[in-house]
Amino acid sequence: MKPSSEDEAGPAGGPWEECFEAAVQLALRAGQIIKKALSEEKRVSTKTSAADLVTETDHLVEDLIISELQKKFPSHRFIAEESAAAGAKCVLTPSPTWIVDPIDGTCNFVHRFPTVAVSIGFAVDQELEFGVIYHCTEERLYTGQRGRGAFCNGQRLQVSGETDISKALVLTEIGPRRDPATLKLFLSNMERLLHAKAHGVRVIGSSTLALCHLASGAADAYYQFGLHCWDLAAATVIIREAGGIVMDTSGGPLDLMSCRVVAAGTREMATLIAQALQTINYGRDDEK
Amino acid sequence: MKPSSEDEAGPAGGPWEECFEAAVQLALRAGQIIKKALSEEKRVSTKTSAADLVTETDHLVEDLIISELQKKFPSHRFIAEESAAAGAKCVLTPSPTWIVDPIDGTCNFVHRFPTVAVSIGFAVDQELEFGVIYHCTEERLYTGQRGRGAFCNGQRLQVSGETDISKALVLTEIGPRRDPATLKLFLSNMERLLHAKAHGVRVIGSSTLALCHLASGAADAYYQFGLHCWDLAAATVIIREAGGIVMDTSGGPLDLMSCRVVAAGTREMATLIAQALQTINYGRDDEK
Repeated sequence: MKPSSEDEAGPAGGPWEECFEAAVQLALRAGQIIKKALSEEKRVSTKTSAADLVTETDHLVEDLIISELQKKFPSHRFIAEESAAAGAKCVLTPSPTWIVDPIDGTCNFVHRFPTVAVSIGFAVDQELEFGVIYHCTEERLYTGQRGRGAFCNGQRLQVSGETDISKALVLTEIGPRRDPATLKLFLSNMERLLHAKAHGVRVIGSSTLALCHLASGAADAYYQFGLHCWDLAAATVIIREAGGIVMDTSGGPLDLMSCRVVAAGTREMATLIAQALQTINYGRDDEK
Repeated sequence: MKPSSEDEAGPAGGPWEECFEAAVQLALRAGQIIKKALSEEKRVSTKTSAADLVTETDHLVEDLIISELQKKFPSHRFIAEESAAAGAKCVLTPSPTWIVDPIDGTCNFVHRFPTVAVSIGFAVDQELEFGVIYHCTEERLYTGQRGRGAFCNGQRLQVSGETDISKALVLTEIGPRRDPATLKLFLSNMERLLHAKAHGVRVIGSSTLALCHLASGAADAYYQFGLHCWDLAAATVIIREAGGIVMDTSGGPLDLMSCRVVAAGTREMATLIAQALQTINYGRDDEK
């Protein structure tokens, strides 16, 4: 069933409803472009490493989303993956700010591995107001609005209540840096969770969709070092509205710009995961 | 679109057509049971480790598939996951033999992580004749018949032609054994591929569906130690019919009972992956 904008938003109204509706429409439009591109040949250029690929479609989709939103909301600010790669600063001010990842899972996209999503988050006064994520190949639209619940194609999302690592399915991503020292830390963190007898660890190639699985209760925890604010912004609202926890890997409150995160269905689980991890320092999005 | 049995088999005919049609019908029926179970509460018992879970549905689906096939083909033999766990021998004789995994991705299934499949393979004279795999949550039916191509919901499958590890998306699975020595080898193999600058490594929790991604060209290579003949039988036909290679991790011919495999779109890629790996000895299916 193709999702429509009518059936997953929860109750109508709220001060940012017009923005939310625009985000849903643009996520669906962007998803159609991505699906079409997946059936065509692609020329690929590289960003900072082979693992962090960028494609024409990435640029095309980001340009579409930002230009349409700028027309509708000319005073708003934007933080977006490709603009940041081109040198734009990532600073979250109190102004209404859109935080956009045009294609999360670019490496998957390049390989046509069907785990890719559009992610559009929105913050006001440095607080996340809503998130819209569209898993275009599966036609699943995930939405969350602060105080109004999280939904996937109209169905309310609820995180898992698991508190025991030995019963947990844990998701993570490798991250863009592949130097030997960073890889050692990544693998050592995975080893610690497997020693703690996690049921399984999954690596699906899209932080955003991994976080959506967490919101839906299909996984119990997620952690990553080396993700960006645009991977995290929309999903954070969706997880919180599904009853989950998103925090810093130190165990403290989430810092959207810190390039690291632990998320879980329960605070107990998030804290246990945070305690198990060694830090991988990727710097900050707002200091690049 | 819900797949039907009419639109994905390729040209009609062949000596095992009736068996193939029965496999397609049973995979679709089993998929409906699994989808229904995913929306209900489940009681779970453990097999050899927390990572290797077994559920009522697993048993129910295996019993359905085997009892229906026994009625239709009383002289045929069976190798199936739950029967093997209960002590039945896994011996591939020249007799027509069905090799069945009722739910591949049991740990995913238990967590409702939507990457689970039914896998039905069929061998005669110890040669694989066809494979049917149904990814039930996404309603994708993968089929391959020896000499007649591989299909997903009617669309012909074709592997990737990639020969360079540094351009490859590689899939693997952790395997059921989680003792420190086995985990060290698992993580060391992943490290070797990341040092070889593979674009990415993915762990999705279903060997069978990972192999289907390989058949569709969405990934370039797959390797695993600790999988079983029922994870591999159906997918092997599908990959070969999509133009790919399935071999032993030693670089020699596939041994279905050896609990290890490398698969790739090209022989060059499969050989490079095999050369990069350290062996993890899981014994043999036919000596357990």
